[in-house]
Amino acid sequence: MSTNRLEAFSDGVFAVAITLLVLDLKVPSVGGRHSLAHQLGAQWPNYVAFVVSFLTIGIIWINHHAMMSRLAAADRAILGLNLILLMTVAALPFATSLMAAYLRQSQGEHFAAAIYSGAFLMMSIAFIATNQHIMFAKAHMLSRELSRPERRGIVLRGATGLVPYALATALAPLSPYVTLGICGAVAVYYALPIGSGERRAA
Amino acid sequence: MSTNRLEAFSDGVFAVAITLLVLDLKVPSVGGRHSLAHQLGAQWPNYVAFVVSFLTIGIIWINHHAMMSRLAAADRAILGLNLILLMTVAALPFATSLMAAYLRQSQGEHFAAAIYSGAFLMMSIAFIATNQHIMFAKAHMLSRELSRPERRGIVLRGATGLVPYALATALAPLSPYVTLGICGAVAVYYALPIGSGERRAA
Amino acid sequence: MSTNRLEAFSDGVFAVAITLLVLDLKVPSVGGRHSLAHQLGAQWPNYVAFVVSFLTIGIIWINHHAMMSRLAAADRAILGLNLILLMTVAALPFATSLMAAYLRQSQGEHFAAAIYSGAFLMMSIAFIATNQHIMFAKAHMLSRELSRPERRGIVLRGATGLVPYALATALAPLSPYVTLGICGAVAVYYALPIGSGERRAA
Amino acid sequence: MSTNRLEAFSDGVFAVAITLLVLDLKVPSVGGRHSLAHQLGAQWPNYVAFVVSFLTIGIIWINHHAMMSRLAAADRAILGLNLILLMTVAALPFATSLMAAYLRQSQGEHFAAAIYSGAFLMMSIAFIATNQHIMFAKAHMLSRELSRPERRGIVLRGATGLVPYALATALAPLSPYVTLGICGAVAVYYALPIGSGERRAA
Repeated sequence: MSTNRLEAFSDGVFAVAITLLVLDLKVPSVGGRHSLAHQLGAQWPNYVAFVVSFLTIGIIWINHHAMMSRLAAADRAILGLNLILLMTVAALPFATSLMAAYLRQSQGEHFAAAIYSGAFLMMSIAFIATNQHIMFAKAHMLSRELSRPERRGIVLRGATGLVPYALATALAPLSPYVTLGICGAVAVYYALPIGSGERRAA
Repeated sequence: MSTNRLEAFSDGVFAVAITLLVLDLKVPSVGGRHSLAHQLGAQWPNYVAFVVSFLTIGIIWINHHAMMSRLAAADRAILGLNLILLMTVAALPFATSLMAAYLRQSQGEHFAAAIYSGAFLMMSIAFIATNQHIMFAKAHMLSRELSRPERRGIVLRGATGLVPYALATALAPLSPYVTLGICGAVAVYYALPIGSGERRAA
Repeated sequence: MSTNRLEAFSDGVFAVAITLLVLDLKVPSVGGRHSLAHQLGAQWPNYVAFVVSFLTIGIIWINHHAMMSRLAAADRAILGLNLILLMTVAALPFATSLMAAYLRQSQGEHFAAAIYSGAFLMMSIAFIATNQHIMFAKAHMLSRELSRPERRGIVLRGATGLVPYALATALAPLSPYVTLGICGAVAVYYALPIGSGERRAA
Repeated sequence: MSTNRLEAFSDGVFAVAITLLVLDLKVPSVGGRHSLAHQLGAQWPNYVAFVVSFLTIGIIWINHHAMMSRLAAADRAILGLNLILLMTVAALPFATSLMAAYLRQSQGEHFAAAIYSGAFLMMSIAFIATNQHIMFAKAHMLSRELSRPERRGIVLRGATGLVPYALATALAPLSPYVTLGICGAVAVYYALPIGSGERRAA
């Protein structure tokens, strides 16, 4: 299969998942006791989770594109691995809703945070597994030949997200805010131009 | 009509339907009697149904791509049949919700399971009908000429999903778990790289 | 602007609108007094409205593709008219929900039916206006030169949907079932292969 | 990165966001005290907000296309800025819901209006920032060389939306209807063929 339609379908899933995040921003009920400004202010975890998840899906989309553009064609094993990767992406709006609903609660907040960063962790693992499979098992299907060290370097660079997400998940029992903070720092560092400028300088 | 835009539109429907499955993963109500972990655990039918339906839509997308790539062009009959196929795909999030909501109930669970595998069965039938129409009524529109036995082989291979889904539907009165298990086995066997490796060896 | 990206964006709106129709199929509440089969059976207006709207959006998508493929390029007036057409398409899931919810009620059923066929009527009018504008005001932007009678023929053929939808809307005060029946007949006639076969013969 | 896939992904987000606006059109509850016509009539802010937001997203999509078509390629800084722009687009269905829900209330209506036009303002700022970055920091990546005055002119023309949205936000404490009116006037002027005709004449 050519990678064109694989990319088109993947782009569709990424675009729908990233836009469905908005369903998590809720209109406060009309006629509440508190002012609208107060009610909206109390929803700040929803806005933070929206921004963090939006930027994170955006980053993984960029990385996904880079990964696919190295391929000349895709076989069923790559389609299967890509499908699992897309499944972890499609599940993110749920993990985001959960995090936003429980962050400020006194019950379940640690578990919700662990699921949030754990969802990013699973997405990272699915990404690394697909990348690894392409670079080593399917090296003959690359559009441009790459040396073994080059291929190892690509897989390793793609694996950098693993460490902060594992850390964020491990620290969820400590504080859900730390977990959200780490995920947010990763998102801002990789998505925003400033981060990319710094990386380019390095 | 060229098949390009037909594929683009179909990809869009597949991508939206597969991503809408996430709406079926519900955030437990805050402040419930049970712990969040317990409440999420009780939702396992939703996760299983999400995974099975996601993989199944992914498989049918792959097969749909293969079917369309054999065509040089599409006429209105093909568009009409494809539209019916897409309708069965678009209905899957509903069947998935129904299955997830009723699996563990003591009332309606058999009927919900029959509708779940029945929805996959209808999708299979729509796929086979489209494939059959393309291979026999529209053989002159194929991008590469195929012999009659080749065309028969393609239709037959595309029809293999029919048997397990018919079986799963027939066994729904026995147990909804059996139905879900069969649908899940089909999804894992066809979608995951392991399955494709085995098939490649065969 | 090339028509490629215009088509890609329009395809996206069509694909999302057509797939969102599934949100109108509701899972009956668990533990109701009636059996699941009975509760699902009582929802038949939802299934009928789903099928009719799905096929209708599919038809308009096919016609939209034919319209755009005649253009070599698009200017802002065409983009604006196309945007209004897409707006009428995006509103269809709402009109469909309304029809399904009120069809069997004894209050509001006539009004809901009028809005349903009225939404199709508005979509037809937006389609005809766009087609007319392309064929006469923008004849110099067509990818292939067409004579005046040819262009008039294309606009007229694209206008055939107007009559049944106007009739269906006019008959809504009589019976919502008649309205739904006319809309359904149009959908089946134009979308299904049988219909296209008959038209080809004619 | 080629701009093709960037456009495809952006188109997807625009298409999903614009179509999700329909979720804000609510079916009145069956069996209410008032007639269906009355209940639907009372929802007019939802229809107005739907039309204004739909046209506005449509305009920004057209402008986005023009912006991207000037680029020969995109780097990570452009991807990051584009991602932020898409985030402001994806948030619009929420701002639209909020505006529609509160417009006719006697509490929160000013704040909701300020958020509505403020969301358009943020989208404008993100658009201008991306445009500015492309035109000045990345002038070497343009597909066609442009003189400094030409580039300044493009950024300035793209910035015209800023003024009415800033004004609409500033006037929200006065009246939410004024805010909605200004946003609606911008949408109609830029989206509709009449507007474009006037501009062409100018």
